[in-house]
Amino acid sequence: MDKVNIKEKFQLFSEHWSPKILGEVNDYYVKVFKAKGEFVWHQHADSDEFFLVIHGQLKIKLKNGEVTLNEGEFYIVPKGVEHLPYAEAECHALLFEPKQVVNTGDADSEKTVEPEWI
Amino acid sequence: MDKVNIKEKFQLFSEHWSPKILGEVNDYYVKVFKAKGEFVWHQHADSDEFFLVIHGQLKIKLKNGEVTLNEGEFYIVPKGVEHLPYAEAECHALLFEPKQVVNTGDADSEKTVEPEWI
Repeated sequence: MDKVNIKEKFQLFSEHWSPKILGEVNDYYVKVFKAKGEFVWHQHADSDEFFLVIHGQLKIKLKNGEVTLNEGEFYIVPKGVEHLPYAEAECHALLFEPKQVVNTGDADSEKTVEPEWI
Repeated sequence: MDKVNIKEKFQLFSEHWSPKILGEVNDYYVKVFKAKGEFVWHQHADSDEFFLVIHGQLKIKLKNGEVTLNEGEFYIVPKGVEHLPYAEAECHALLFEPKQVVNTGDADSEKTVEPEWI
């Protein structure tokens, strides 16, 4: 593989809540997504989920609180914990998670998408 | 867990080539390290290794070339590929790899260290 410049990759797509794959580490993907507005309440029964903000601000609502992530900050949502990511203005973020994780977890949602490589 | 501000964590230690654990994603650790000078030639037979530069510049020598990573760039060294990370000036980087990975891989080196949480 070649090296990857994360900010350059964000110039290649515009849609929100549609993760793109930048790399693979064994059985995990490194993915990025653009966020704006609300996603959907969901949880991943079998996996923790790592969120790192690259640009802007991402908020993650939890049933017992809320996390606000600014650029250079990360949070790991534990497996089985319901969460609702949202962003008031467009936010760019990076994810690490097992390849089989579905973006909407257990939610029956029109926002479910298959990630693609960019 | 609380959210983590990566740059703040770099203020908590000064030694080079001594990874610190910031978080865990299932069976993987999110780690950071400071680099300056040369590390040691090694490979990880069973795991790919993700390097993301947070500050400065990291170079990774490979047997057939070299990768130069600036801030916001990452490279994934495939399992079994010999590599030698080095930095001319101090560099701050983030790693993502399985918990059992040893920093010096197969090398018999005085630079082998157990990572600790910070």
